[in-house]
Amino acid sequence: MSRAPAPVRFSLNQETIRQWSLPELVAGCTAAGVGAVGLWRDPVRRFGVRESAKLVAGAGLRVSSLCRGGFFTAADPAGRAAALEDNRRAVEEAAELGAQTLVLVSGGLPAGDRDLSGARGRIVDILGELAPWAAGHGVRLGIEPLHPMFASDRCVVSTLGQALDIAEQFPSERVGVVADAYHLWWDERLPAELRRAGESGRIVSVQVADWVTPLPEGVLCGRGQLGDGCVDLRAFRELADGVGYRGPIEVEIFQPGLWAREGSEVLREVIERYREHVE
Amino acid sequence: MSRAPAPVRFSLNQETIRQWSLPELVAGCTAAGVGAVGLWRDPVRRFGVRESAKLVAGAGLRVSSLCRGGFFTAADPAGRAAALEDNRRAVEEAAELGAQTLVLVSGGLPAGDRDLSGARGRIVDILGELAPWAAGHGVRLGIEPLHPMFASDRCVVSTLGQALDIAEQFPSERVGVVADAYHLWWDERLPAELRRAGESGRIVSVQVADWVTPLPEGVLCGRGQLGDGCVDLRAFRELADGVGYRGPIEVEIFQPGLWAREGSEVLREVIERYREHVE
Repeated sequence: MSRAPAPVRFSLNQETIRQWSLPELVAGCTAAGVGAVGLWRDPVRRFGVRESAKLVAGAGLRVSSLCRGGFFTAADPAGRAAALEDNRRAVEEAAELGAQTLVLVSGGLPAGDRDLSGARGRIVDILGELAPWAAGHGVRLGIEPLHPMFASDRCVVSTLGQALDIAEQFPSERVGVVADAYHLWWDERLPAELRRAGESGRIVSVQVADWVTPLPEGVLCGRGQLGDGCVDLRAFRELADGVGYRGPIEVEIFQPGLWAREGSEVLREVIERYREHVE
Repeated sequence: MSRAPAPVRFSLNQETIRQWSLPELVAGCTAAGVGAVGLWRDPVRRFGVRESAKLVAGAGLRVSSLCRGGFFTAADPAGRAAALEDNRRAVEEAAELGAQTLVLVSGGLPAGDRDLSGARGRIVDILGELAPWAAGHGVRLGIEPLHPMFASDRCVVSTLGQALDIAEQFPSERVGVVADAYHLWWDERLPAELRRAGESGRIVSVQVADWVTPLPEGVLCGRGQLGDGCVDLRAFRELADGVGYRGPIEVEIFQPGLWAREGSEVLREVIERYREHVE
């Protein structure tokens, strides 16, 4: 069946169609004319980092992001050392894949810890060691703020402003920010903070998913298909464009409803919705 | 069993022990030496507003808040008129109960609406009519920001700063803000915004519950018993005190685990935890 290729800036994050193996992802994206993918470390490592890199590059696909490094907030020396070591491996993997950015999710509060500000401080501390390592490998780090509902157990960086406060302590060619509409849509300061990020050349990745309710238990896998929720995704993309972002727009939806369907059918729908609500 | 009375600023929000009828609530609080309660409109109306007022005042209990008015964001004239009418009734009920504040939860986005800023504007508009009505009844309105995870379906006001931006368009003796640790704990701007609220005399209510994960489906009833989660509740209370707040500290926990237990046993535990983690 002949079909127009996907929009040029469209990128498919692998988790949106997690039922696909890596070869299925590459074949499916190639068939649909998709030019870029966001990859995750676990499936890439299962398939083999070198083999994944070959397969993806061989198909002419770019890697818009590798998800993810981070989880920097351990307060004990052993936990900190393990996090740093794991993130060095993540940097090497990103380099081997030619990923445009390594996404960093900061980590939540350690058990029993109530000091958000202290945890945020430890992120800066560990980045001081990781950023030069990433630079040495030609990899750019992207700090991703997650929605405040994840502040305790997943990511103490909750706003784009906080992510920028951290990123700006490092050179802009080494550390930037990831702007995901799902996490940031509610924040009235978003336009000002996107401008701040754009003007300093810090936007390294833009992601989209829609906000739908009710949220499921655990809230992680309740993201909506583009257009099904209340986020003005086109306005979000235009904001990013307006401050100079020219990179890929990655669709990253965690949703069991999409995972239960046939992959190429999901991709067709995602591209259709992208044209309608984002492009 | 003889027991020291509850701490003087402690207030029990009725929903924390929703298994109690209104007479049980009054009897239970009296027995435990609790001096104030936060009430909800539904159970009060079921028992009768006048009867509730008599019962509560007769027992010497103060009413720290009445929950709740609000839900102001309807975009259609009929919806707006119905909201205004309902809120006028809420003001009358708060006056009859002698409630220190009528808590306002702003409402979410109407179905199909993606314009957060427009919805926030409609809150100001309707308060322009409600605030004089409340003043005429000697009732003070408290705008409560809810956690951003409720922004789409319950409350488009997500931070104390946004609540203040709205409140400050009205005289401080008419419209203030409600600071609930559960909704605000993640926000690094909280100290600055509490200061702003305190200096302008706008803090009309302080509430506490702890943040625990995983969040349950729908996320509304996942609040933690004081001390079970990651919120530094004492620091929060001290912040409020430090900017001049001298009123009640209301414990408002929505949690099926507490609702399944014997009420006076829950109250005993809540007071114990309050002494340990808040006072």
